[in-house]
Amino acid sequence: MLYLYSPDQQELYFRLLQEALPDREIACWPQEVDPEAVTHAAVWMPPAGFFRRFPNLQAVFVMGAGVDQMLGRDDIPEQVAIVRLTDAGMAKQMIEYCLYGVLHYQRYMDVYRQQQGAGQWLAQPTRLAGEVRVSVLGLGQLGAQVAQHLAGMGYRVTGWSRQPRAVGQVNCVHGDAALRALLPETDVLFSVLPATPETRHLLDAERLALLPKDSAIINAGRGSLIDEEALLAHLNRGHLRFVMLDVFAQEPLAADHPFWLHPRVMITPHVAADTVPEEAVSQIAANLRGLAAGEPVTGVVERCRGY
Amino acid sequence: MLYLYSPDQQELYFRLLQEALPDREIACWPQEVDPEAVTHAAVWMPPAGFFRRFPNLQAVFVMGAGVDQMLGRDDIPEQVAIVRLTDAGMAKQMIEYCLYGVLHYQRYMDVYRQQQGAGQWLAQPTRLAGEVRVSVLGLGQLGAQVAQHLAGMGYRVTGWSRQPRAVGQVNCVHGDAALRALLPETDVLFSVLPATPETRHLLDAERLALLPKDSAIINAGRGSLIDEEALLAHLNRGHLRFVMLDVFAQEPLAADHPFWLHPRVMITPHVAADTVPEEAVSQIAANLRGLAAGEPVTGVVERCRGY
Ligand SMILES: NC(=O)c1ccc[n+]([C@@H]2O[C@H](COP(=O)([O-])OP(=O)(O)OC[C@H]3O[C@@H](n4cnc5c(N)ncnc54)[C@H](OP(=O)(O)O)[C@@H]3O)[C@@H](O)[C@H]2O)c1
Ligand SMILES: NC(=O)c1ccc[n+]([C@@H]2O[C@H](COP(=O)([O-])OP(=O)(O)OC[C@H]3O[C@@H](n4cnc5c(N)ncnc54)[C@H](OP(=O)(O)O)[C@@H]3O)[C@@H](O)[C@H]2O)c1
Repeated sequence: MLYLYSPDQQELYFRLLQEALPDREIACWPQEVDPEAVTHAAVWMPPAGFFRRFPNLQAVFVMGAGVDQMLGRDDIPEQVAIVRLTDAGMAKQMIEYCLYGVLHYQRYMDVYRQQQGAGQWLAQPTRLAGEVRVSVLGLGQLGAQVAQHLAGMGYRVTGWSRQPRAVGQVNCVHGDAALRALLPETDVLFSVLPATPETRHLLDAERLALLPKDSAIINAGRGSLIDEEALLAHLNRGHLRFVMLDVFAQEPLAADHPFWLHPRVMITPHVAADTVPEEAVSQIAANLRGLAAGEPVTGVVERCRGY
Repeated sequence: MLYLYSPDQQELYFRLLQEALPDREIACWPQEVDPEAVTHAAVWMPPAGFFRRFPNLQAVFVMGAGVDQMLGRDDIPEQVAIVRLTDAGMAKQMIEYCLYGVLHYQRYMDVYRQQQGAGQWLAQPTRLAGEVRVSVLGLGQLGAQVAQHLAGMGYRVTGWSRQPRAVGQVNCVHGDAALRALLPETDVLFSVLPATPETRHLLDAERLALLPKDSAIINAGRGSLIDEEALLAHLNRGHLRFVMLDVFAQEPLAADHPFWLHPRVMITPHVAADTVPEEAVSQIAANLRGLAAGEPVTGVVERCRGY
């Protein structure tokens, strides 16, 4: 039996799963079921201990791309496969989100907004796409497509990952030394890295200081990437033009957090790339059938590396 | 002789023209020349009467896409060809400008900005590109590329022109009845129409009222398109989510204009698509040679239709 736990749109997901898997028994929280019958689960952010009562669980399908919340818990035994979504309609949204931030930077929309407030009519220098260096941290399912799309629009894109990667026309680098070399050559830093022990506070005071004056940061990966105190200090020194943040160390962002009213911070409430129910369900159904047939499936999480 | 009049970057243009046309004599304002020797001019916004002293003028190359300022004057005899720039690096910038406004709308950036000011963490409903209807007014050198780019990103694009046009995958319509039918089916109205007697106040109170509640307008064509008083009244009734204006009936926008401080108006100072000097000069040089050789050239303005 496939057991569904979805904090929102539960009815929609239930119906879509039934349509996609007509031969499977499907139940959804908080429906009472025989715990021994549950072999698969499709979930987003289930409460602590949720999986403990299912002794015959074989696979957990995460209804999102990020799995940090799943790896940080102790109720999923080692032999249970954790399968996340790969793209499933999220890459397009991530491209849009990143592009908005890049255009905001390139086309001086922050400056024009300020000028408007002061009643000032003043053209900023023309800056063509080819003059904007965008560094994309994370070249996975989402980052690779973002990098490629921006390169296609003429931006000077470099992508950064853990292992060597090749992504179309994008200049690709990897590893810590390459990041240190890349930061001073970056106008817009876009991150779509997962939260792992290694990426935690990757952007600390020291690495932030490597960014050129008047550069911008867009973070749509996870909030743990950035040392938020260091970022605030850096912003307050007037070093960055702006930051656009979709993810935070604590979500929702605390009501008294200084980011809210900071003139150089743009906040969106973790909406950069939403799960598209139809695409998520068709991927989950395909993966469920693939696992049952012993075929390789996409999105199986490697627990040791944390993503 | 080619005579150059450029309000800014005159030295750059002078050098580029000399490089592109090594076999031509070139002079630039305010240099004294024999007026009878001047056969061609390359200009942007020259003062009234500027051309009157050149009896042997054959062609005027306008260093921009819009020619309303040239057609409104009386110092260019009928037989002198007016040749404007076609694209020349402007289409890419126009795509960026339009895309920024469309993303601002689609991704609720205006709403998130307001929520941020109120310290409110609240996700707006997901809206995919395929759910956003963009109507592009003007399917010329610039509009056609904007429409095609947006369609390629998945937006539901309809283009509108005077005569029937075919533009890739874009749904194309033309004429006044089609516009009336289109407006109520529009989420984002983007205009890159030229200023002509026909387009003047095309967006008047009556047509503005045809737009659905919470739609948006982006005007990067010419300010004469919109009846600004009617737009203000419409905005103040809370009917539109926002307007993004690059062009105005009077430029620079008057210091006391109510647009400046209006919360639903985003102002940029006529910067949507700037002339790229290298591309402009190479097009002007090619057209000058083409005219001399009696070949058809791009961008010859049809005075009777006004663009
Ligand atoms: N804000 C939102 O709305 C939203 C929506 C969806 C996803 N996300 C976030 O985006 C993340 C990425 O999603 P995805 O599907 O693209 O993941 P993915 O396919 O697993 O890709 C992850 C990328 O990050 C790189 N990476 C991981 N650890 C690294 C390290 N220590 N140093 C350098 N590079 C490292 C990986 O490098 P290798 O290529 O070398 O493996 C890979 O390129 C998710 O984990 C989630 O947190 C956010
Ligand atoms: N804000 C900026 O920075 C900026 C920069 C560059 C240009 N512009 C403006 O953009 C305008 C367009 O440039 P372009 O190079 O694309 O011009 P274009 O190639 O001449 O195209 C003009 C388009 O507008 C359409 N049109 C003209 N009058 C019309 C009417 N009465 N009803 C319906 N459609 C009409 C034409 O229809 P047909 O196809 O039927 O002829 C054509 O599709 C310029 O004139 C200029 O004013 C602004």
